[in-house]
Order: sequence, then structure tokens, then C-alpha cells
Amino acid sequence: MSDIKVGLIGFGNIGAGVVRLLQENADVIRNKVGTGITLKKIADLDITSDRGVTIAPGVLINDVNEIFDDPEISVVIELIGGYEPAKSFVLKAIEKGKHIVTANKALLALHGDEIYAAAARKGVEVQFEAAVGGGIPVLTAIKGNMAANNFGSVIGIMNGTCNYILTRMTQEGADFADMLKVAQQLGYAEPDPTFDIEGVDTAHKLAILISLCFGTKIDFNSIYTEGISRISGLDVKFANDFGYRIKLLAIGKISEGHVEARVHPTMIPLHNPLSEVNGVFNAIRLTGDFVGPVMFYGRGAGQNPTASAIVGDLIGLARTMQAGAGRRMAPLGFLDGEVKTLPLKPMANIVSKYMLRFSALDKPGVLASIAGSLGNHGISIESMVQTTHQDSDATPVPIVIKTHEACEGSIQEALEEINRLAIICEQTVFIRIEDNLE
Amino acid sequence: MSDIKVGLIGFGNIGAGVVRLLQENADVIRNKVGTGITLKKIADLDITSDRGVTIAPGVLINDVNEIFDDPEISVVIELIGGYEPAKSFVLKAIEKGKHIVTANKALLALHGDEIYAAAARKGVEVQFEAAVGGGIPVLTAIKGNMAANNFGSVIGIMNGTCNYILTRMTQEGADFADMLKVAQQLGYAEPDPTFDIEGVDTAHKLAILISLCFGTKIDFNSIYTEGISRISGLDVKFANDFGYRIKLLAIGKISEGHVEARVHPTMIPLHNPLSEVNGVFNAIRLTGDFVGPVMFYGRGAGQNPTASAIVGDLIGLARTMQAGAGRRMAPLGFLDGEVKTLPLKPMANIVSKYMLRFSALDKPGVLASIAGSLGNHGISIESMVQTTHQDSDATPVPIVIKTHEACEGSIQEALEEINRLAIICEQTVFIRIEDNLE
Repeated sequence: MSDIKVGLIGFGNIGAGVVRLLQENADVIRNKVGTGITLKKIADLDITSDRGVTIAPGVLINDVNEIFDDPEISVVIELIGGYEPAKSFVLKAIEKGKHIVTANKALLALHGDEIYAAAARKGVEVQFEAAVGGGIPVLTAIKGNMAANNFGSVIGIMNGTCNYILTRMTQEGADFADMLKVAQQLGYAEPDPTFDIEGVDTAHKLAILISLCFGTKIDFNSIYTEGISRISGLDVKFANDFGYRIKLLAIGKISEGHVEARVHPTMIPLHNPLSEVNGVFNAIRLTGDFVGPVMFYGRGAGQNPTASAIVGDLIGLARTMQAGAGRRMAPLGFLDGEVKTLPLKPMANIVSKYMLRFSALDKPGVLASIAGSLGNHGISIESMVQTTHQDSDATPVPIVIKTHEACEGSIQEALEEINRLAIICEQTVFIRIEDNLE
Repeated sequence: MSDIKVGLIGFGNIGAGVVRLLQENADVIRNKVGTGITLKKIADLDITSDRGVTIAPGVLINDVNEIFDDPEISVVIELIGGYEPAKSFVLKAIEKGKHIVTANKALLALHGDEIYAAAARKGVEVQFEAAVGGGIPVLTAIKGNMAANNFGSVIGIMNGTCNYILTRMTQEGADFADMLKVAQQLGYAEPDPTFDIEGVDTAHKLAILISLCFGTKIDFNSIYTEGISRISGLDVKFANDFGYRIKLLAIGKISEGHVEARVHPTMIPLHNPLSEVNGVFNAIRLTGDFVGPVMFYGRGAGQNPTASAIVGDLIGLARTMQAGAGRRMAPLGFLDGEVKTLPLKPMANIVSKYMLRFSALDKPGVLASIAGSLGNHGISIESMVQTTHQDSDATPVPIVIKTHEACEGSIQEALEEINRLAIICEQTVFIRIEDNLE
């Protein structure tokens, strides 16, 4: 059989990685697929800059329509990123009957439905393993070998910038702002890091995971998203005292037909493999009703791991084409008609344990006031750390409490009440705890 | 399209799990495949015992030939285990043009070649995700989304019995024999635990992983296999002092066309996710030239996780059949003609760091003798722990040394020399260290 012909749109860092992988490992790919995978055309506005890879003459083009109009090209890789023109290009390629491979998490998180519907109409596949967890083959596993399970939860450490900063804060007892600077100097954080540190990138990935695991559409804007910028070195230290690490966690859960979707700093127990996911590494942990808990760990970003996932998708499509079949799997694993729209649980209704850090004046009755207010809202205390007296009782001291499971709404109400007390010097910090990790 | 019809051979604990999963999650399977998956016939010698699942009348049969001879049955699940009659049944089913799903690691480790060749001739698939790591979808990932990589190494904690015993030894400072008894009382170890604790089960799984990762046949009997029965509580303690956990590790590596294949107790650095794989959990870690290091973690055995993997294989085959294709992938991911027979590196040539525990009389010059002998064999010392004096200098004391990287052959020669010294009271214990885990 002749080579599988592919068109690539967007020749940046990741695109260059795909080119290099297809060149360097052409042998191993051919030995597994039985044919070569050829990049016939690569479209980009800039076709002159050196990307460190050699491209045959005539392959690099400015006009993306040459890809859409080439009947030999059966798969289009979209690596532009962002919403437009990525979305229009993907829809155009689908319209022309081409399978899609993309790493564009923002596009899928917000416009996945429209793209999947178009693909269903044309009978083509949409593959996007690289959109979540870089090279970690977690999406393929959810849609594929673990497909027999009803999934109950999916949680993930999926942003290398945040995890690098939190890891350094933990290792060095440092504060957020200092470690952000270090991350920026090392190129692990962007000059404007908002997108990463405020959890937006993680929320994009969570939206995709929730769709795959629970077979539901999800409104991206209704995902509760809280970043790591308010976490202090003190929080990291107290978390450690209680036996936890702080990670930016994406959490998706389902119970009684209601979905939880939230991204926030979360305390994870020490001696769980997740708590040892450090630096720029990512991990995703799922629970299925038959498979139990499963965790995937690896490099969540970077040119080479991302290229591995993209070419992995290409190999899957090539094998299906080689076997003489058209579309083998719907984008979410579930048949298109079986994707539901499940209701989202409001944040006030979620149940969690919490670490509460109060900054209070060291006066008699302080603890009684705090404990009383918590008790009035049905929140019971599991354990507590109160540091020793300061020189003056006018200096605030931290009082740190770990609660039993409580309703988020009750916590919010209790803290609002407590924050108004005269003895409380700063807004109380609260961090949710994910404890039940077998 | 009508349901996919499946025949099951072997109705034990795992078989009953498959039946239950197909019944309980029939909806989610249908929503992902577009058709049902029906167990049309289940063959076993015992068709009267209660397995806790309801079977329609006429499905349970004694005569396995009814499965082979049923033209409606397109997939056969083999769950007898062992070599015969499993092998004959699998070959017979292939001969009849049926796809195979099996969890039989022993069969594939020793007779995989013959089975894969037969499947190639008949154009059917052989899937065996459940054979390694229970429900963890690692084989599908190696053959599938990570297929573009040249893999450099695969290491795994893949025997729940050993890992449970080693975990309890670590947590309680206990010795092997006591924790083996506990594991037996809890049903985590067989009455005759040899197969597990001496590493044979782990070696079967390693043989399969090496074939998939490196595209090579491997002679099972040439895998170096050493169990955990000689590990003492003292070794676990000293390993911890040096910053390590002891795990029974399967190690497969490739360099310059030579394969390493070995199973032995191994020291893994603390604060690596692998060192927190505890109890009956399994983990497999691979490195690919593009994807980098990737780790998979989950339940490596048990009725439900194993059923998840088996039905996952069924879903994959069903999707391919639904898409109108026949054979989509060769058993090892590599095309059958591309599977090589690479040479195995002799144990004497492997390079590792080592922890050496000497039991020596506490006399002047002891350390000089040991260090001198190590030095003569080109082995240099990275660090050392010598415990305090005992009451009498006639009582042996442990001297524990961590070496820099050394050749296994040199270590063996040096230890043979040192073990002959009059000051050495017991055979020196040595444990290999796997240090280079990014």
C-alpha cells in the first residue's frame, strides 16, 4: 500500500517536533504500520525561518487551501492553537473528508461539540491525545482499553508551570512570587503567566477529560477555576505538617448523575504516588468501577512528548486505513448520539475536607470563637495546629485547622462570619483536601 | 449491526468477572461500540458450581468444540491459564478464524511466537492486555499511542504478592518470613508461594513487555530471575538509610542492539513515584526516545481489574469489526515479519550501582581489606554506613557500602574473594540499585 499522506497546519515548535519524529523514527513507524506516513504539505504564514529540520522542496506552503484541496491527503494535523483560524481550518478539513489530529485543548474545550458533530456527519475521526498530558497516552486509554468502565472520578496535575512552582515552594519553603520569577527565568513560565497560574490551561484539559470519562458535554465557563497565586510558603509548610502536599488539581467527579468540575490548589496525602509528581511532570488519576484506581505519569508538555502523542494518533489512523476501514471510533469514545448533557453540581454543594489557616490575635477566647462559628455551621474539626505565643499578644498568630468532611457552602458561610471578627487580622485561607486516594 | 458473539473458555474467578462486567455495564459498552457484546458460549469442565453470576440456559457447555465450530463466534477468550490445553485451544480457535483475547502470561511468554505466527497466517488478532499489570492499560499504550517511539527501557513492579510483603517489611521493619505468613493469611500469597516470590510470574510479564517494546523474541529461560526470599529486614532498613526502597523489579533495557532482561530485588530512590507503589499495586515505567519517561499505575490483579482489561480488548476488536475491517494490528504492534531476535546481554556485563552488606568481625583492618578488594576489581565506593561497636569484637557487625556504577562480573568476583576472608562471617548480601529515574 502507498504511504499515508498527511497535511500539517502550523509549523511552530511542536510542528517541527512532528517533522523530526516522522523523519528520525520512520523505520519503527513503517515496521508497525506497514507503510510510511508522509507529510505531503506543511502550511504556515512563515515558511522561511529555520526550525532545525530539513523539509523537501515544495512541501512548505503559505496557502492552507492546498491542503484542503489535495485529495491524496487523508489526515490533517492542526497545530496553530487558539480558536481562530484553527476552528475554521479544522471544520474545512472535515468538510473535505479528512481525519483530524490536533493538540488544541482550548479549541476542543470550547468548540468540541461543533467539531465532533461535523466529523460525525462526514464519517471522519478526530484524535487529540496531545491535548491533555503531552505524551501521556491517557485519552487513548480512557476511550480504548478502559472503555468498559463507568468512571467515577478523574483528577490530574496537568500544568507544568504550576507544578514546577509548587514543587520549588515545597522544597525550599519559598513564597509564590519568588518561585514564579525562577520559573520565568528558566522558561517554565511565560512572561505573562496568567493563563497557567490561574488554572485556565488546566480547566481546558479537565473539560476534555470529563467529556471522555462521563460521556457528557460541559460548559467550559461553568468550571470552577482557582489558581495558585494566593498560596504562600506558610500554607505549604502547614500542609506538610498535616501530612500533605499542595498541588494544582483538576477534579472531575460524577455521582447520581451530577458532575463536579473544579480546578483549585488541593492538598494530597504524602506517600501517595500523586504527591511525588514533581517539577514539570504531569499525572492523571482515574477510578473506574471495574479497573479501580489507575494513574498515568509523564511529561505533560514539550516538543518531543507532544510529537509522540500526535504521531501516535497518526499511527492509529494509519492502521485503521490499512485495515480497510473508515471511521473506527467517535471522538469521545462514546457514539455521538450517546453524549449527554449532565447537570453540574454547584460549588456550594461539593463536599471536601479543608485546611483553614486563620490569622488571629493571640487573645483568650479566640479559639472558642472560631470553633464555635465552625460548629454552628455543622463543621467539625479533625485536628489543629496552634503556634506558640509571640512577643506581644497584639501580633497575629496562625491557627491552622483541618476539618472533617464539610459542605463548601457551609465553609464559605462560616468563614464569612469568622472573617468579620475583630480578632481576625487577615482573610482566612482555605485549601481543599483530596484525601480518599487509595 | 448484530451483536458481536464471543466464546469464553475457562469459567473461573476471572471468567465470572468478565460475565459480570458484560452484564452490569452492557449499556456503557453499547454506547461506545454501537452494538452489544454477547457471550454466546462458555466452556468449562465444571458447569454446575455457583460463580455468583446468572447465565442464560444453554450457554454453559462442557465441550469446547462447540465454540470452535460455531461460525457466529468471532472472538474467543482463553482464561484457563497454564500451557496445556490452553495452547491447543488457542491454536484451534485461530485455525477456525477467530480473534483471541487472553490473560495467559505464561503461555505467551513461552509460546507467543507460535501463536502469533498462526494468527498472522489466519489474519486474526491476538490481544492480551490483562496478561501484564491486570487492569492497567500499558500494553495497548505501547502498541498504540506510544508506537512512534524507540523504547530504551521498561521497568515494572508487577507482582502484588512480592510488593505486599516488601511494603509490610518496610512499614514494620519486619523480616521476610513473618510477612510472607501475613500475606498468606490474608490471601495475598498462595500456600505454595514459590511462583510469585521467586520472580517467575514477574519474568513472564517482563518477557511480554520486552517483546512489545523492543520488537524482539526473547528466550524466557534466559531471563535472569531472582526472588525476594533472601531480603532481610536489615536490608530494608539500610536501603532506607541510603534513601531507597527495595522493590522486586523487572528490568528490560536495550543498548547497541543488546537486550537486558532481569528480575531481582532492586533499590529505587525515595521521592520517585515508583517508590510509593505500595501493597498489591503494580506500576510499569517506560522510556521512549520522544515521549521520555512514562509511568502507569494501578491494580495488577483481581477479578474486576482483569475483567476490565479483557473486555477492553473485546471492545477494541468489536470497534474494528464494526468499522468493517479484519485484522488491524499484529499481536506485538510490530508487523510479524519485523520482529527480530536480538542478543541478550550476559548478567556479568550489566552495569549497576550496588548496596553491599558485609557481616564482618569488628577488628582493625577489616574495612581496609574489603575496600582493597573492591578497589582491585575497579569498584569505587560512593558512601558507607558502619554501625557502632558491639560488646565483643568477636560479634559480627554489618558494614554497608553503596558503590558507584560497576560491572556485575566485577562485583561477583570481588564478593567471591571477600567472602573467603576469615573476618567475613556470612555470605555478603548485594542488592542492585536503579538510580537513574528522572
